[in-house]
Amino acid sequence: MFSFAQLTTLLSQRENQILSVTKAPERLYEPIRYMLSLGGKKIRPALVLMSCNLFSDEVEPAVDPALGIEIFHNFTLMHDDLMDRSDMRRGKPTIHKKWNDNTAILSGDAMLILAYQYVSSCKPEILSEVLNLFSTTAREVCEGQQFDMDFETRDRVTEEEYLEMIRLKTAVLLGCALKTGAFAGNADPLDARYLYDFGINIGLAFQLKDDLLDVYGDASVFGKNIGGDIVCNKKTFLLIKALEHADSRQKDVLNHWISLPAFDRDEKVRQVTEIYNQLNIKDIGEEKAVFYYKNAMDCLEKVSVEHARKQELILLAGNLMNRQF
Amino acid sequence: MFSFAQLTTLLSQRENQILSVTKAPERLYEPIRYMLSLGGKKIRPALVLMSCNLFSDEVEPAVDPALGIEIFHNFTLMHDDLMDRSDMRRGKPTIHKKWNDNTAILSGDAMLILAYQYVSSCKPEILSEVLNLFSTTAREVCEGQQFDMDFETRDRVTEEEYLEMIRLKTAVLLGCALKTGAFAGNADPLDARYLYDFGINIGLAFQLKDDLLDVYGDASVFGKNIGGDIVCNKKTFLLIKALEHADSRQKDVLNHWISLPAFDRDEKVRQVTEIYNQLNIKDIGEEKAVFYYKNAMDCLEKVSVEHARKQELILLAGNLMNRQF
Repeated sequence: MFSFAQLTTLLSQRENQILSVTKAPERLYEPIRYMLSLGGKKIRPALVLMSCNLFSDEVEPAVDPALGIEIFHNFTLMHDDLMDRSDMRRGKPTIHKKWNDNTAILSGDAMLILAYQYVSSCKPEILSEVLNLFSTTAREVCEGQQFDMDFETRDRVTEEEYLEMIRLKTAVLLGCALKTGAFAGNADPLDARYLYDFGINIGLAFQLKDDLLDVYGDASVFGKNIGGDIVCNKKTFLLIKALEHADSRQKDVLNHWISLPAFDRDEKVRQVTEIYNQLNIKDIGEEKAVFYYKNAMDCLEKVSVEHARKQELILLAGNLMNRQF
Repeated sequence: MFSFAQLTTLLSQRENQILSVTKAPERLYEPIRYMLSLGGKKIRPALVLMSCNLFSDEVEPAVDPALGIEIFHNFTLMHDDLMDRSDMRRGKPTIHKKWNDNTAILSGDAMLILAYQYVSSCKPEILSEVLNLFSTTAREVCEGQQFDMDFETRDRVTEEEYLEMIRLKTAVLLGCALKTGAFAGNADPLDARYLYDFGINIGLAFQLKDDLLDVYGDASVFGKNIGGDIVCNKKTFLLIKALEHADSRQKDVLNHWISLPAFDRDEKVRQVTEIYNQLNIKDIGEEKAVFYYKNAMDCLEKVSVEHARKQELILLAGNLMNRQF
């Protein structure tokens, strides 16, 4: 069995081969290399390899699809950063800031195609099912991003709508990564399905944890400014639950800050967080994350390989739950 | 054998099935339906079916890949219109004008994925080669668009560079369409290759014809304002050859108009066209287009099916050469 660290080292080596493909036009490929060189946690490609490794000691057949899924993830970041007008990503300027909007559009398009090329480099006997899964997932990720943007201009979003949005935007790609790895390891269809569901539940827990870290994280470790979601009125699980549980006074305070066009950033974060605290929103969020985490563990439990082989996935899931960044 | 008209009718019926897939989020899928409903000449999907029909009386296996290639073409138009800030397409507002930039980005992304889904719905035994060809082609089209944008900010572009740019941006997708159809019709690899080359040469002739129509077309038939390329200093084959053949006085006049930040549109078009006329640029352009057209015919000649089956392709190529729009 390979550890997470061993697998990410392997992935980095292989990723350098993509990075070294220097081709004209430079202006198309340089931003792709830049984006991939920014690093990131490499959770998705590691999940592909770890899932394959559950069923097979040979992870090589999973490497190209793993790289394809990582390239796809970076493509979504490139276009999402442009659509959200985010200036920074992993401590560096985003593509449209460093170059311009058109560069982010076109290099992103080329990256999506490159992702398909790597995903398609799987074993021919699984090509059709890997490709179907990947395309379905890719479309769902776009749908999730559209719902996320739609929610910005809406007054109210229900808990169900929010959970469906993060399922599409975040969770399905983790499920896809795990199921793709299972295909590459010749898992039986039922095990592949359980791993997909494990991924969905881990993905939901992961995003809820992200919502929590945005408010309750340690700024020095989290890497982003605390309260970013509060500042831009993002309808996260926390805000949705707060509006649900608030009494009329608390509702007034929340709606006051939400409707204010100009405000003192720190004061807004402080007062909204204060209401979250009064309503135990942190506990409610943690509880929901734990609920999905437990669901995930139940799914993994059902996968028909010996428990010892599952240790690396259990470890990773635990780390994602307890992460501070 | 099916005629071009029969095939485009078939394609329209099948395209309506895509259009009728109404799915949430509406804001993601409505622009895709709008884009596909604008129509267009449907040359690329027709080429897929016609190529298949050379080898097989059964064109059904080519329909989904044909639709995929047409969806891909429309994806490139959606993103190109955004990058070029074009307001109108086929007489209607473009996506970023009717909605906004983010809609054009994200619906375009979903369209590229949808294109892959249709292309992948080919017969399993040709999936791998169809997909490789499609991905390679899609990347090349992005490269062509990048070169096209790069050329805008350059002072000089050589004839070779220009021809390579239009090969990538326009011709390879015609080659891909024809080769995909050949695969679907179980053609042998050599015939598939000849059809690809037929497509490349027709594509080059087609684009050169487009350059000519922009200057010498009949405004009432061409559907765009005459002289659009001249107005925006586009380094077309015509301008490149004019600068190559111009004496120092003519060069001064061309460079004067190119460098002028504000000008009378009609006067610029009139004076630049005047120099083109002095230098017989129209003939030089026509000659080059005919050169590629003849190359194309030579390639088609080599395809090992009886001449009678090639009539529809010969007819279409002739119409593209003699078109007024």
